[in-house]
Amino acid sequence: MSDSVRRVPVTRIGRGPAGAGEDAAAVEEPLEVRLHGRPFAVIMRTPGSDRELAAGFLFAEGVISSCDDIGAVEHCRHPDHPDRQNVVDVYLIERAARDVDRHLEERRNVVASASCGLCGRTSIESLRVRAEPLGTTLQMQAAIAADLPAVLRTHQAGFDRTGGLHAAGLFTADGGCDSTAEDVGRHNAVDKVVGRLLIAERLPARGFALAVSGRTSFEIVQKAWLAGIELVCAVSAPSSLAIELAEAANITLLGFARDGGFNIYSHPSRIAAV
Amino acid sequence: MSDSVRRVPVTRIGRGPAGAGEDAAAVEEPLEVRLHGRPFAVIMRTPGSDRELAAGFLFAEGVISSCDDIGAVEHCRHPDHPDRQNVVDVYLIERAARDVDRHLEERRNVVASASCGLCGRTSIESLRVRAEPLGTTLQMQAAIAADLPAVLRTHQAGFDRTGGLHAAGLFTADGGCDSTAEDVGRHNAVDKVVGRLLIAERLPARGFALAVSGRTSFEIVQKAWLAGIELVCAVSAPSSLAIELAEAANITLLGFARDGGFNIYSHPSRIAAV
Repeated sequence: MSDSVRRVPVTRIGRGPAGAGEDAAAVEEPLEVRLHGRPFAVIMRTPGSDRELAAGFLFAEGVISSCDDIGAVEHCRHPDHPDRQNVVDVYLIERAARDVDRHLEERRNVVASASCGLCGRTSIESLRVRAEPLGTTLQMQAAIAADLPAVLRTHQAGFDRTGGLHAAGLFTADGGCDSTAEDVGRHNAVDKVVGRLLIAERLPARGFALAVSGRTSFEIVQKAWLAGIELVCAVSAPSSLAIELAEAANITLLGFARDGGFNIYSHPSRIAAV
Repeated sequence: MSDSVRRVPVTRIGRGPAGAGEDAAAVEEPLEVRLHGRPFAVIMRTPGSDRELAAGFLFAEGVISSCDDIGAVEHCRHPDHPDRQNVVDVYLIERAARDVDRHLEERRNVVASASCGLCGRTSIESLRVRAEPLGTTLQMQAAIAADLPAVLRTHQAGFDRTGGLHAAGLFTADGGCDSTAEDVGRHNAVDKVVGRLLIAERLPARGFALAVSGRTSFEIVQKAWLAGIELVCAVSAPSSLAIELAEAANITLLGFARDGGFNIYSHPSRIAAV
């Protein structure tokens, strides 16, 4: 049994013979991400790919922009720390290291700096400062796109056992599965996939598609945009702001991808409906 | 069409005749919660029940402990603000008002104060400081509990149109539906339900059950505990930490409530299996 799934006692009612038994639950534990030894964030996550999660999270937050910024990403080495497995230490180098104080201070001020004009447009505009609309290098057959969530599903070993884990997966244009991650949090699963790319010096992820197991929020599209992922395909519905952001980012956004079909909410030209 | 659902253009592929059409998307917009005119938090939410959401959120964060703490909860009245509908101003009175500076400062320091011992136990212990384990005043027939998510589903008008909205609902022991809320965020839906109770001076919600449309995380059980809700029933899986917290809080936690059955993960004595 892996660290991401835990056996729990359960009383079953109404399906077959009632009574005490065992169930497998998705593990949820806090992960502290520290920058140069100082606390930056606490993320409720499923253990596993913690270094990738920390890297992907810091990338989405604008703290690091490439693998070159990272000196080390590692679980806490302090032998006396009671929960070392729930702490990831990140050390930056070069220019990024000089900005650590600023990032920690900005994080403290993130609330106070909320924009005056507070609407979806403002959120999108603030992202435009950090990222250009993506180019178009991906073309995908409709039949392949429709099948992405189902293929992702075959990689969801934790979901099979718990029914309680989200997943994200990176796919090539011909539907090949590059990598996947599972987590109790949808956003964490995407951060793990993107963080793995970043650590492997594979960002931006041009020509790739991202499949997610649930709904698509603003944040999912934001993370895809920053990673250079041109197509986001979800088994369920997008939010209005996810659609607006995908429109601005030149991302092809698909929803309800199941049973051989899907809806295209933005930039349909990447889908070849042969 | 309400503010919570928006028509969006869509290209349909692979289900019936392909081509351009329209779809309904769940609206996601940022809501700024201000304390005495100063920014406290920005929440991505579905518009609707914004005052309830703000009140429920501040209650879960420990800023207010009852309706008596609230002087006013209202959308921004400033005629020049470009997005007044996305700003809720909260003014506190009495003792709570004197703590506003402390709350704003604590919010800024929330990252820096991350506990040294960082595990699920620590998270649960920190909640124990704020809340006693609940008493047992609720008894529910198994057949009623199994049906709660299905009854909640009949109140999910926004989900029917978008497939993209979570829901939470408060139910009496005999299965009567007291109130429900929908939101792109699961936690927001619970905050809306609890905030409505708080504003109506109905907290703690003794003898009530909470049904949620998705999975149960640590935060969902935390919000139920603080509101005094003795039973949480979800259509999907709980996380390991949700189960541990429910155990500590004396909350009955049900999962996979569908098709006439469910699993009990903690404190089964509130369920009468007649």
